[in-house]
Amino acid sequence: MKGLFITFEGPDGAGKTTQVSLLAEYLEKRGFEYITTREPGGTVISNKIRQILLDPEHIELKDQTEILLYASSRAQLVHEVILPELEKGKIVLCDRYIDASIAYQAFGLGIDRKTVEGINRFASSNVRPDRTYLLDISPELGRKRLIGRTQGEFREQLDRIEQRELEYHQRVYQGFMKLAEEEPNRIIKIKADQPIEQIFQQIKSDFDSFLQSKRNM
Amino acid sequence: MKGLFITFEGPDGAGKTTQVSLLAEYLEKRGFEYITTREPGGTVISNKIRQILLDPEHIELKDQTEILLYASSRAQLVHEVILPELEKGKIVLCDRYIDASIAYQAFGLGIDRKTVEGINRFASSNVRPDRTYLLDISPELGRKRLIGRTQGEFREQLDRIEQRELEYHQRVYQGFMKLAEEEPNRIIKIKADQPIEQIFQQIKSDFDSFLQSKRNM
Repeated sequence: MKGLFITFEGPDGAGKTTQVSLLAEYLEKRGFEYITTREPGGTVISNKIRQILLDPEHIELKDQTEILLYASSRAQLVHEVILPELEKGKIVLCDRYIDASIAYQAFGLGIDRKTVEGINRFASSNVRPDRTYLLDISPELGRKRLIGRTQGEFREQLDRIEQRELEYHQRVYQGFMKLAEEEPNRIIKIKADQPIEQIFQQIKSDFDSFLQSKRNM
Repeated sequence: MKGLFITFEGPDGAGKTTQVSLLAEYLEKRGFEYITTREPGGTVISNKIRQILLDPEHIELKDQTEILLYASSRAQLVHEVILPELEKGKIVLCDRYIDASIAYQAFGLGIDRKTVEGINRFASSNVRPDRTYLLDISPELGRKRLIGRTQGEFREQLDRIEQRELEYHQRVYQGFMKLAEEEPNRIIKIKADQPIEQIFQQIKSDFDSFLQSKRNM
């Protein structure tokens, strides 16, 4: 079997990072070879790009720059990490991927979707996830959780993108929902306003049957 | 009159930076409003991107990442500096621009030219130079000059791109020649193996008549 590429998507505050860890733990127990990574970041170069992207002081950063920086961080991650690991037959768990660019940049910023897709096809050499878990949380609740995390020091700890107004995050949310509607066979939508363990049971159960179906192919 | 956008192109070691300074001095004397800038760089954010691009330690930086990082640096420079200054009616002198991406990335790295052009059209909102001075120096001579500049400590002071082998720089050179052939009305080719002052006289004389023709329009 060639590797499997699994991505986790959803608004900020949806609990993606926790679910990536739980699935990683499960893979570990079952003896699978896997790696976990995240976007933007995941390589030395991508992490330097991440710093530019998320620095709250970069208020002058333009939409075009943002889209191209996310794509360059992704290009490096795909070609330095994701592709080589998939070729070794590993399971790659990635916190955010191209769907996030469609939601945040095409829907959120209002940039032409075909343009965002074209740039990302080039950046990723068209490497696409086999399965995507979309944690579905309303932008209002996601935001509340984020603010909870910052414990009173609100603006200081939110990054440049998280600081954007609620209307932006509502457009992002609509984008994610649209993507799930378009690709129901790849994108598994999971209600994220449930207890962490309950969310994970749904992911695990889907993952098990997905793996089974892949093996039977 | 709306502003004028003048770019300087050519292989490494062609003497672009010197000619940008000389033309700036000339504009100063004649009382024109102008700015000079360079690529990659020219803004706080673009300079951070420049550091990632040129760091000789980044040997793992992939071609796709390189193209997208150059484009993001350009996107920021165009929208933060070049466009606003042109809109104020200023003359913008820029050391390198999109032609360099076509030469270095499409011709040099062998990436599909239409893809490089498409990404850069998006990055620049299709802002194109009014006039381009292409300093024509053979890659062999350009290289000798570069090495001369490093005064014996060769590799240490060349950036990641300059360190590439001669064959790469020969493809880049062919790229520049092809561009000049395709757009003779915009790209003015000037032999760069002449004394600095002689090169500048040709640029100045072309610039004067170009300006005259613009005023008569």
